[in-house]
Amino acid sequence: MYPAQFEQLIAMFEKLPGVGNKTAQRYAFTLLEKDQEEIGEMIDILNGLKEIRRCHICGFLSAEDTCPFCKDQTRNRSLIMVVANPQDVVAIEKTDSYKGMYHVLGGLISSSKGIYPEDINIEGLLKRITPEIKEIIVATSPTMDGEMTALYLDKVLKDKGVLITRLAHGLPMGASLDYADELTLIKALDNRRKIENE
Amino acid sequence: MYPAQFEQLIAMFEKLPGVGNKTAQRYAFTLLEKDQEEIGEMIDILNGLKEIRRCHICGFLSAEDTCPFCKDQTRNRSLIMVVANPQDVVAIEKTDSYKGMYHVLGGLISSSKGIYPEDINIEGLLKRITPEIKEIIVATSPTMDGEMTALYLDKVLKDKGVLITRLAHGLPMGASLDYADELTLIKALDNRRKIENE
Repeated sequence: MYPAQFEQLIAMFEKLPGVGNKTAQRYAFTLLEKDQEEIGEMIDILNGLKEIRRCHICGFLSAEDTCPFCKDQTRNRSLIMVVANPQDVVAIEKTDSYKGMYHVLGGLISSSKGIYPEDINIEGLLKRITPEIKEIIVATSPTMDGEMTALYLDKVLKDKGVLITRLAHGLPMGASLDYADELTLIKALDNRRKIENE
Repeated sequence: MYPAQFEQLIAMFEKLPGVGNKTAQRYAFTLLEKDQEEIGEMIDILNGLKEIRRCHICGFLSAEDTCPFCKDQTRNRSLIMVVANPQDVVAIEKTDSYKGMYHVLGGLISSSKGIYPEDINIEGLLKRITPEIKEIIVATSPTMDGEMTALYLDKVLKDKGVLITRLAHGLPMGASLDYADELTLIKALDNRRKIENE
């Protein structure tokens, strides 16, 4: 019923996660009120997206081949924290209490979603284990998939001669790591524990 | 902490109504997973926005000077329904029980928001009143601002020799017209009533 251009705009917003038709319409009308300059800026931002890649070492987002964390020579290179997503890195960084390296898996092993170990960046992690590495902190969320991934990582890492630890269960079970408040994250980091194998 | 291009993308989404940082990040990561072709399509859609204008007769969105409703010679030209926003036109059209013309005010008179009669398209409505026009249906939402606008329209239209009606109060007070279900809208349309002046 709207002009085709406007219906396309609504359809574009409807593809965003959790956005229904009403919300998509609200977003579309907001854009309609913007002037050509603002729309031009949005187009520039979308064009800039292609410059964003994954760091070839840790998998975090980066505008260059190597991300600022992996370049930073002041960070503790004997420590790697393994997280599911880039958002988790940002959540940890905000606590300002971790100065080691990161490894972003790009997801979690999930039997329900059919995500297998080879679908996430575990191979990249194994390649990073050199004698320099002393400890790997498995910082996956305390959910079913997070626990599954942590167990799998423990299995493939335990013979590598590095200490494997996990964030303490200060985090309530079932919650997503990247929604935790900073204090809870700091506690979880301080109380990280070695994975015990029976 | 993210690359500048990605922070800009998050900031762009944060400008949408009701979108906070977490939601903006979710949207941004969704876009990051799209390929260049899909991003190109989004850019085309944003470029197409400048072709959308307001119909010079009724104020509805249109890709041409005159919208399809105003062009349609099969519609009843003696009847004008006055609504606040283009969304309201779409809501009424979905009921499939109105075949007259529309007039989109582009807002409502509001003492709280400081919107005065001259800020919305009432002048355009007055210009449309010719001997051909028999009835004007004031279809503003039954909210404070909607009622205020309806009263004002009644005041400026009552000497024009046209019947002025309002949608029946089947709509619960305080709700927004464009969220009503179709049945409620059909009822409200059937039971429209003449505004009585003391």
